[in-house]
Amino acid sequence: MKDTIRIGILGLGVVGSGTVALLQKNRVSIEKKIGAKIEITKIAVRDLNKKRLVTVDRGLLTNHCEEVLDNPENDLICELIGGVSPAKDYVLHALRNGKHVVTANKELIAKEGHDLLHEAMRRRLDFQFEGSVGGGIPIIQPMKNALGGNEIQEIMGIVNGTTNYILTRMTHEGAEFNDVLEDAKAKGYAETDPSSDIEGYDAQYKIAILSSIAFTSQVNVNDVYVEGITHITRRDIQCAQELGYTIKLLGIANRIGEDQMQVRVHPTLLPSEHPLASTNDVYNAIFVRGDAVGDVMFYGRGAGMMPTGSAVVGDIMDVGRNILFGSTGRISCTCFQQRRMASMDLVETKYYIRMIVIDRPKVLAAIAGVLGDHQVSIESVVQKAHLNDNAEIIWVTHKTKEKNLRSALESIRELSVVLSIENFLRVEE
Amino acid sequence: MKDTIRIGILGLGVVGSGTVALLQKNRVSIEKKIGAKIEITKIAVRDLNKKRLVTVDRGLLTNHCEEVLDNPENDLICELIGGVSPAKDYVLHALRNGKHVVTANKELIAKEGHDLLHEAMRRRLDFQFEGSVGGGIPIIQPMKNALGGNEIQEIMGIVNGTTNYILTRMTHEGAEFNDVLEDAKAKGYAETDPSSDIEGYDAQYKIAILSSIAFTSQVNVNDVYVEGITHITRRDIQCAQELGYTIKLLGIANRIGEDQMQVRVHPTLLPSEHPLASTNDVYNAIFVRGDAVGDVMFYGRGAGMMPTGSAVVGDIMDVGRNILFGSTGRISCTCFQQRRMASMDLVETKYYIRMIVIDRPKVLAAIAGVLGDHQVSIESVVQKAHLNDNAEIIWVTHKTKEKNLRSALESIRELSVVLSIENFLRVEE
Repeated sequence: MKDTIRIGILGLGVVGSGTVALLQKNRVSIEKKIGAKIEITKIAVRDLNKKRLVTVDRGLLTNHCEEVLDNPENDLICELIGGVSPAKDYVLHALRNGKHVVTANKELIAKEGHDLLHEAMRRRLDFQFEGSVGGGIPIIQPMKNALGGNEIQEIMGIVNGTTNYILTRMTHEGAEFNDVLEDAKAKGYAETDPSSDIEGYDAQYKIAILSSIAFTSQVNVNDVYVEGITHITRRDIQCAQELGYTIKLLGIANRIGEDQMQVRVHPTLLPSEHPLASTNDVYNAIFVRGDAVGDVMFYGRGAGMMPTGSAVVGDIMDVGRNILFGSTGRISCTCFQQRRMASMDLVETKYYIRMIVIDRPKVLAAIAGVLGDHQVSIESVVQKAHLNDNAEIIWVTHKTKEKNLRSALESIRELSVVLSIENFLRVEE
Repeated sequence: MKDTIRIGILGLGVVGSGTVALLQKNRVSIEKKIGAKIEITKIAVRDLNKKRLVTVDRGLLTNHCEEVLDNPENDLICELIGGVSPAKDYVLHALRNGKHVVTANKELIAKEGHDLLHEAMRRRLDFQFEGSVGGGIPIIQPMKNALGGNEIQEIMGIVNGTTNYILTRMTHEGAEFNDVLEDAKAKGYAETDPSSDIEGYDAQYKIAILSSIAFTSQVNVNDVYVEGITHITRRDIQCAQELGYTIKLLGIANRIGEDQMQVRVHPTLLPSEHPLASTNDVYNAIFVRGDAVGDVMFYGRGAGMMPTGSAVVGDIMDVGRNILFGSTGRISCTCFQQRRMASMDLVETKYYIRMIVIDRPKVLAAIAGVLGDHQVSIESVVQKAHLNDNAEIIWVTHKTKEKNLRSALESIRELSVVLSIENFLRVEE
């Protein structure tokens, strides 16, 4: 039997460093668990002289990625550079060289995962990506393995740590979005260009990956509705709290009937006693509802050097075992169905609407009338005094179709007594 | 390649029925996921005429377990009868016949798992038991796979649904233990003989299984300290709440240094904002702390027909894949270390102590003095009027060794002013 698994690594940033550090620290037990030695043959980096988060023998580093990709000794390539280009080319190159691949690259998997998985499947190679969602939280392997007997009906999760950190601080400190964002940048919790996080794209990649697995159907990431948190104000958070809700950025995926699904990312009002509502700071939590298992939740740190390193090393061990037992390709692409993405118009949920109106008799009744005309019925309404003798009205509707709500809002905007619709947000129970 | 996985099942009670029902309901997708058909050849039951929770062809049933165990067509035997005898003999018989085994039998795994796993390992057979802990919650596979790169430092979990249901109702309704227990029996949430649950033995089996995997060392279930919930009173729950704590029955396992561990089950005061404190009713939740991943939590229904069936079917699919790829025995016993169980004397935690004393000047000071003499320092103390002009004193200590606390309590019991020590419980942060 083969006695050593040889790994070439592309990238020694945060995740690469965590992976290498963990393989160093727990080498003895990891090797005992899989029954073979693990050897890192080379690590390709852009800058040989950059200071690293982990101590590695200088001789292990190269700035020629071919030395990793084309080394016939390697069994397995870890792609830890991120982004689609040139990562996709490197992964394809590795697969075509007959190498198994482990990655934590959510953008690559969300955008190109289907093609790459099929390339791997044709060659009976392993291609794994546990670290692409939820950092070190086991979620992809459990959905494919332990929960494999279930039809997954719904996934609902906090899958982006940066936005959860910002919303948590806005909630706890009563602070405005921009102030917290600037502080988060200064502290390293948000990137200099934070748009991928705050516009919801990072969460969009992750819910696309999770829903593809859950619904055994390829999800085109561009079909996933996305709305970030830049329009969430301190005032919305405060109004939500008064109504017993906490605002979280959620990825939500629902199975609809036999051949449809609905996948979306948006800020959501959750009842404050909901377990996701108390998932704070950079923590992630993912609810999965299966037809047999019911609700299960997975919770933990959604990012970071060592947590994501933990996921990558778990994948390396899994692929290593497959190599040793000759069972690579054991679990490959599971998207054997084709589901259509249902339009957002069909989403049926409760809504929170906050608007500023001229404070005059019968205004509230007039707006309520327009909502009713569009089949939107009202669960609760609060009217408050606002600046300049205007009034602020906060509505929570009963469940209604997004289409009805949007057409109601269009009509309401035309009312001369309505000065502005400040925000409208979806509400989950 | 083999195109059918043939399964013989022992037992068609709650878990057996859930397993069969799930294999019936999701047959198409399960077979697509593993790439082979799944066929149940026979189900051995004690009583052919008993009414079942699932509809099965009468011809599938037999009351001769040899028809399951000795059928050469079977690839895999599911042992779903529970208990050690005769389950152990049946499992050994199956393994010696070269059959893979899946079980959800916590008592069997906790008491005999080591021997059975070694028997399976010698024959390169799979022997899996995801359903033995936490019902349908994926926890054993993730610890062996996705979290495999970690040294697990601590596990802390609510692993028994019946006691969690009882404690939740005592907390929410201010009810006494016996009243809730009787009602739970009437509703089917507790068994007619509830001792395995309320005395903590069920939790003891489960934390023994989890800690064996986490610490890669066989844990002798008899070495696991166990204390049930029968001594928890409405008054203790009320006092804990006033101090900001919720009482939960926890299984706790800690790694101590290189070669020791501490594994125990007891009621515990948890800060009310702790995620485990809001795990209510029959739900289970398990915290795992790894050196790389940090804290992760797994939450869901800890028992029941379909949740446990979900775990069994997940194992069947995993073994099925191994059979198809010739990789059985891929993950076998991981207890390659020998850790000693540290004495309970060495447990170091905070304690809650409730006592009734004669209400006389200097009594509190005298007791505090005795605690101090035994190196037990006090975090908070509340004295309240009690019946007959006596007083009730509730202490919460700083962290101290169990040994010190127990010797302090012995000395305190000898004080003539102390009428009774009503309870003492451990407090986690």
